[in-house]
Amino acid sequence: MAKSKKTFRPKARLPKGMRDIDAGEIRIMNDMLAKVAQIYDSYGFEPLETPAFEYTEALGKFLPDQERPNAGVFSFQDEDEQWLSLRYDLTAPLARHVAEHYDRLAKPFRRYAWGPVWRNETPGPGRFRQFTQFDADTVGTKSVAADAELCMLAADVIEALGIARGDYVIKLNNRKIFDGVLDAAGLSGDDKAATRLTALRAIDKYDRLGKDGVKLLLGPGRKDASGDFTPGAGLPDPKIDLLMKYIYSGQGLPLKDVTDDPAEVARLGNRVMKFSGFEDEENGNAFFVIDNNFTITNLRKKFGKNHLASSGIDELEIISDLVKAAGYDEERIIIDPTVVRGLEYYTGPVFEAELTFEAKDDKGRPVRFGSVGGGGRYDGLVARFKGIEVPATGFSLGVSRLLSALIHLQRVGQTRAPGPVVVLVMDFEDVPRYQRLAQTLRQAGIRAEMYLGTSGMKAQMKYADKRGSPCVIIQGEDEIGNGNVQIKDLIQGSALSKTITSSQEWRAANPAQIEVGEDELVRAVRKVLSRHFD
Amino acid sequence: MAKSKKTFRPKARLPKGMRDIDAGEIRIMNDMLAKVAQIYDSYGFEPLETPAFEYTEALGKFLPDQERPNAGVFSFQDEDEQWLSLRYDLTAPLARHVAEHYDRLAKPFRRYAWGPVWRNETPGPGRFRQFTQFDADTVGTKSVAADAELCMLAADVIEALGIARGDYVIKLNNRKIFDGVLDAAGLSGDDKAATRLTALRAIDKYDRLGKDGVKLLLGPGRKDASGDFTPGAGLPDPKIDLLMKYIYSGQGLPLKDVTDDPAEVARLGNRVMKFSGFEDEENGNAFFVIDNNFTITNLRKKFGKNHLASSGIDELEIISDLVKAAGYDEERIIIDPTVVRGLEYYTGPVFEAELTFEAKDDKGRPVRFGSVGGGGRYDGLVARFKGIEVPATGFSLGVSRLLSALIHLQRVGQTRAPGPVVVLVMDFEDVPRYQRLAQTLRQAGIRAEMYLGTSGMKAQMKYADKRGSPCVIIQGEDEIGNGNVQIKDLIQGSALSKTITSSQEWRAANPAQIEVGEDELVRAVRKVLSRHFD
Repeated sequence: MAKSKKTFRPKARLPKGMRDIDAGEIRIMNDMLAKVAQIYDSYGFEPLETPAFEYTEALGKFLPDQERPNAGVFSFQDEDEQWLSLRYDLTAPLARHVAEHYDRLAKPFRRYAWGPVWRNETPGPGRFRQFTQFDADTVGTKSVAADAELCMLAADVIEALGIARGDYVIKLNNRKIFDGVLDAAGLSGDDKAATRLTALRAIDKYDRLGKDGVKLLLGPGRKDASGDFTPGAGLPDPKIDLLMKYIYSGQGLPLKDVTDDPAEVARLGNRVMKFSGFEDEENGNAFFVIDNNFTITNLRKKFGKNHLASSGIDELEIISDLVKAAGYDEERIIIDPTVVRGLEYYTGPVFEAELTFEAKDDKGRPVRFGSVGGGGRYDGLVARFKGIEVPATGFSLGVSRLLSALIHLQRVGQTRAPGPVVVLVMDFEDVPRYQRLAQTLRQAGIRAEMYLGTSGMKAQMKYADKRGSPCVIIQGEDEIGNGNVQIKDLIQGSALSKTITSSQEWRAANPAQIEVGEDELVRAVRKVLSRHFD
Repeated sequence: MAKSKKTFRPKARLPKGMRDIDAGEIRIMNDMLAKVAQIYDSYGFEPLETPAFEYTEALGKFLPDQERPNAGVFSFQDEDEQWLSLRYDLTAPLARHVAEHYDRLAKPFRRYAWGPVWRNETPGPGRFRQFTQFDADTVGTKSVAADAELCMLAADVIEALGIARGDYVIKLNNRKIFDGVLDAAGLSGDDKAATRLTALRAIDKYDRLGKDGVKLLLGPGRKDASGDFTPGAGLPDPKIDLLMKYIYSGQGLPLKDVTDDPAEVARLGNRVMKFSGFEDEENGNAFFVIDNNFTITNLRKKFGKNHLASSGIDELEIISDLVKAAGYDEERIIIDPTVVRGLEYYTGPVFEAELTFEAKDDKGRPVRFGSVGGGGRYDGLVARFKGIEVPATGFSLGVSRLLSALIHLQRVGQTRAPGPVVVLVMDFEDVPRYQRLAQTLRQAGIRAEMYLGTSGMKAQMKYADKRGSPCVIIQGEDEIGNGNVQIKDLIQGSALSKTITSSQEWRAANPAQIEVGEDELVRAVRKVLSRHFD
């Protein structure tokens, strides 16, 4: 560290895992946030902003029997030695807010919030230590109508951002069913918490690893392609079979039993899924049609005797009926038993928003964007403060992931706003003249700036180019004499420069440059702009 | 701290100096930020977002010969023991960004940024440890045309937010003049740094304390009304007189020398100032007309022989000419020698945006909102990294202060957006019916929600009221039988309830409640909304 003020020069660098966000991305992001806010608003949610950090104990980030905050959060002590931590999500601060203002809030309380959250974790490609979340939560109702609403809201948000119906799906499940199944498998009880967590994580990976991978993770463990070994839950075969039966409950109806008409198959769209790992594969069925009622019937048949699972299945049925009544069928919202969500605090319905279209990466390899948001019911979070249970459910949108997908789909406008019109300075003794031209344009609502450097015309043109200017304004001695200005269309000029080969030809035609009276400036610039932007 | 997981209940409370921001303020703030961004955009500035924290050394927050960061910032160590600090402004991160990407940036580089900053200071009423700044900076040009631009931009921003011309003023000065005056007073040199800072702070308080107060602070020190003593700079009388002469340079022309026509006085508006402390007071002049040329002449006459002051005066003249050429006269931008700005890093032009209208507080006492933003030239900040000087100038808008002023002026829309239409649940066995009604309204673009609690109709009505709902939708057994819905206008209902006295009369008239066919729902609700909002 710097001991001498004179010689020390700090290195100009970002902290590990941090990034700067440039103008193009900010503009797209703001547009996106406004659209999401509009949908959240339409459902009656109200915005709430909480500060960047909270008392660590309020975030629940003390481990039992430890004096220092949990790893995973950025923490520091206030001058009175109380620990503070940067928020790692938007839910924990909401729980604090609700507990603090419980009596005065209109309940059920619907709130939305967006903003950065911070994770003290090892960063990786595309994984930053600061990123943006956009959450909607409903606090103070046990009714699963609140969960149903969040599933519909998730679908509406994704469509509002320009992703077509059929290119995404909201996957729905209930942790009570999963917990009931674990109970039926003899895996309840405090002493089996670690095994349960391993099983949960295994099932969560069904999408990526398929049948065989999940079986290994439920059993002895699995070595991946790189040779890394993930320890398994160490369950015996009958218990693995029971859990696999649970997974298979969501497979839907074999396509061949539903239809063999290709037009009908096309109409089913997203609902038709290829499940290479499902148990019916042996019977020649690789395609299945998701049907929420069928899944519910399946689950009830197999696990309905377990009290907890049964209550979870009932809730799923209520949600399924609710969303169908509002017009959201399996094209948008499907029940999927493999959706268990990682976080331990979920206590009921859980859901995940997934993009389903296939895209190609730079090298032409297929990529899936996968999950772009999720959430579920967490009835215990406010109870930490209040001692009484305050039921709550929420949905969190993964803004960055969704942004990548939108950029990929080119569903967002040009990533760069049109640059400003640049007024070149032809005479540094007469800067007010050029300033006035820029101001005239700005007052007419045209984005414009005067060149502020000290370089000559060539460098000024280069600057305008770098700024993405649609055109530059030139007023030299001659133009001043005539009361005129020159307008040089840089976009047209750049296009023409590809077809005109000799510089003589260029000068003769001078196709992208026009001279107008100074009082015609605004009209002429508008004309140039309308050539390139609508 | 929690030793036992079972018994510990954290208190639900905000950290010291922090606050939650509610829906009303968020909506106004977003609206405001969008308007400011539009002005900044129009001047050719581009948005840039930097992370919430930086390496402490990059923020320049190490004191010489210390191993720990300076007080005033919130700091913590990364796992590699490097110190990180939450940003305390948006300028230091900009300097880091520019130094890091110097070669690829189009220069001069105009960027804007908004977001929270954090100060590890003692909070007070209206003083929080997290607040929002909105900055525009131009990096890479020595030209004071950049400073002129920022003064005009500041004026445009304030007007765009609904503050009338004449109700604000941009005050402009140059630190070079002040430094030259200090030099002329024999106060240059490293050993007199503390005295200079005290003198700077004294002059900065001229607005509030007037002539006598400033004289005390330049001399022996001052005891305020509460009895607190502020030590002075301890200057001898001749030096105090010199500094007062400097302050008086900006007093303008005595009004009686300019005009005695009341209509003309009114036309001069903001330019006419009452200076009770100025030296001409003895001559019976309490009112003066600010005239930038006159101020420049004054300054040149009194301090033009000092080389540094002279170069500062020249710069002021250039800026004054530039803004006048663009149509910004003394009604909007005035030269004021008492504007010195607190921060030590300013090296040239400095400016401050001030609201000048008189307002009344809750108790009818006059209040002035005063400064709502400011900035200036800081040519040394990037040099910390690069070793070479990179000239820069910036303007920072005090978003929270401006917001208070706008709320006071009622120049911002209703502080509360219309609440959602609430669909009451009359039959908890038939929730999908009510969900569908809510969805029908939302799809028509109407903000709507279904009641999600479990309470009866009276509590549901109370909930709708608390939510600020314009109307509720009621569909009980009778309405279902008729295929109808009831729409109860809560706003009209509340107004009528003040004129109708008997509940019998109320029930008979039932003035704010209408019944329509379910297929008429959207049209009828729109009609109710159009009664109250346009």
